[in-house]
Amino acid sequence: MANLVLHEDPRSGNCYKIRLTAALLDLPLLAQVNSNGRIPVLQIGDRFLPESNAACWYLAEGSELIPADRFQRADMLRWMFFEQYNHEPNVATLRFWLAFVGEANLSEQQRAQIPVRRTAGEDALASMDRHLGAISLYAYTHVAEAGGFRLRDYSNICSWLERVAALPGYVPMN
Amino acid sequence: MANLVLHEDPRSGNCYKIRLTAALLDLPLLAQVNSNGRIPVLQIGDRFLPESNAACWYLAEGSELIPADRFQRADMLRWMFFEQYNHEPNVATLRFWLAFVGEANLSEQQRAQIPVRRTAGEDALASMDRHLGAISLYAYTHVAEAGGFRLRDYSNICSWLERVAALPGYVPMN
Repeated sequence: MANLVLHEDPRSGNCYKIRLTAALLDLPLLAQVNSNGRIPVLQIGDRFLPESNAACWYLAEGSELIPADRFQRADMLRWMFFEQYNHEPNVATLRFWLAFVGEANLSEQQRAQIPVRRTAGEDALASMDRHLGAISLYAYTHVAEAGGFRLRDYSNICSWLERVAALPGYVPMN
Repeated sequence: MANLVLHEDPRSGNCYKIRLTAALLDLPLLAQVNSNGRIPVLQIGDRFLPESNAACWYLAEGSELIPADRFQRADMLRWMFFEQYNHEPNVATLRFWLAFVGEANLSEQQRAQIPVRRTAGEDALASMDRHLGAISLYAYTHVAEAGGFRLRDYSNICSWLERVAALPGYVPMN
C-alpha cells in the first residue's frame, strides 16, 4: 500500500475511527494535525480521500474487519450509513457543543436544537444497543457522555465498548 | 440471488435510488408500498436490509456500477456517505417540507431551520457540481427544485442529470 497520511484533529471521533482501524490492522499511518482545512482526509500516496467511513473501508478492504458474506458486508455498510445519518449529527454534535464550544457560547438556534438532537441521539443509542456492530460507531459512542448522554442506560453498548477496548491493537482516542 | 422485495414509499428518493439501481442492472425487484413501517428496507429472501445506500451497494456488488480499483471504490463510498450526511438532510428535507408538508404546516422550529438547510444544501450541490458521481446522489438531486433549489445554477449537475436519465435501463422516480 502507498504511504498513508491522516490529516486530522485529535479531538474528532471521525478522525479517531481511521486511526483505530489502522491500529487494529497494524497499518503504518502518519497522523498530521490540520487545524484549518477539512478533516479527516486520508492521503494515500498522492491521492486524497475525505469521509471517515470511506477511509475506514479503504483501509479495511481484504481484512477480517469486513465480512466475507455479501449480505453481512452490506449490513456492515448499513450501520456505517446509520452512523453518519442518525448517530453522528446528534451524538457527536452535542458532544462538540457541550464539551468544546460550551453551552454558554451556543447560538440561540443551536440551544433550541439540543432537545431534538438529544432525543434523536438517544434513539440512535437505543437502536445500537439492540444491534451492535461497526467500529465507525465506536468513535463517538465511547465519548457520548461528554454530550450529556447516560451510557449506563445502554447495557449492551457498555459491554460492547469494553470488548472493542480489549481488541489486540486497540488505541485510545487521545 | 434470492427474491428481492423493496418495502418503500414511491415519493421517497431513498427508495427510488434502490429501484433505479435494480433497473440499471436489470434485476427483478418487487416494490411493495409500506405506509406505516420503516422505508426503504430491501428484503433479500428472508433477510432485511435497511439504509438505502447499503441496499444499492448490495445490489451493485460485482457489477460495473462499482469500480474495480480500490481507491475509486472507496471514493464512490465517499460520495455515498457525503450524500447521507451533507446532501439528504438538507436537499431532501427541504423538498419534503416544502413539497409534501407545505410551508404553512411547518412548526416554528422547522421554519427557523430553512435558511440553514438552504445554505447547507446549496453547499452540497456546489460540491457535487465540481465532482460528480454516485447514483445515490441522483435521487434527491433531480427533484431538488421541489425544495426550492435552483438547479440551473449548477451546470455540471444539469448535464450529469441528463446523462443519468439517458442510461440504458433508466426508470423515472414516479
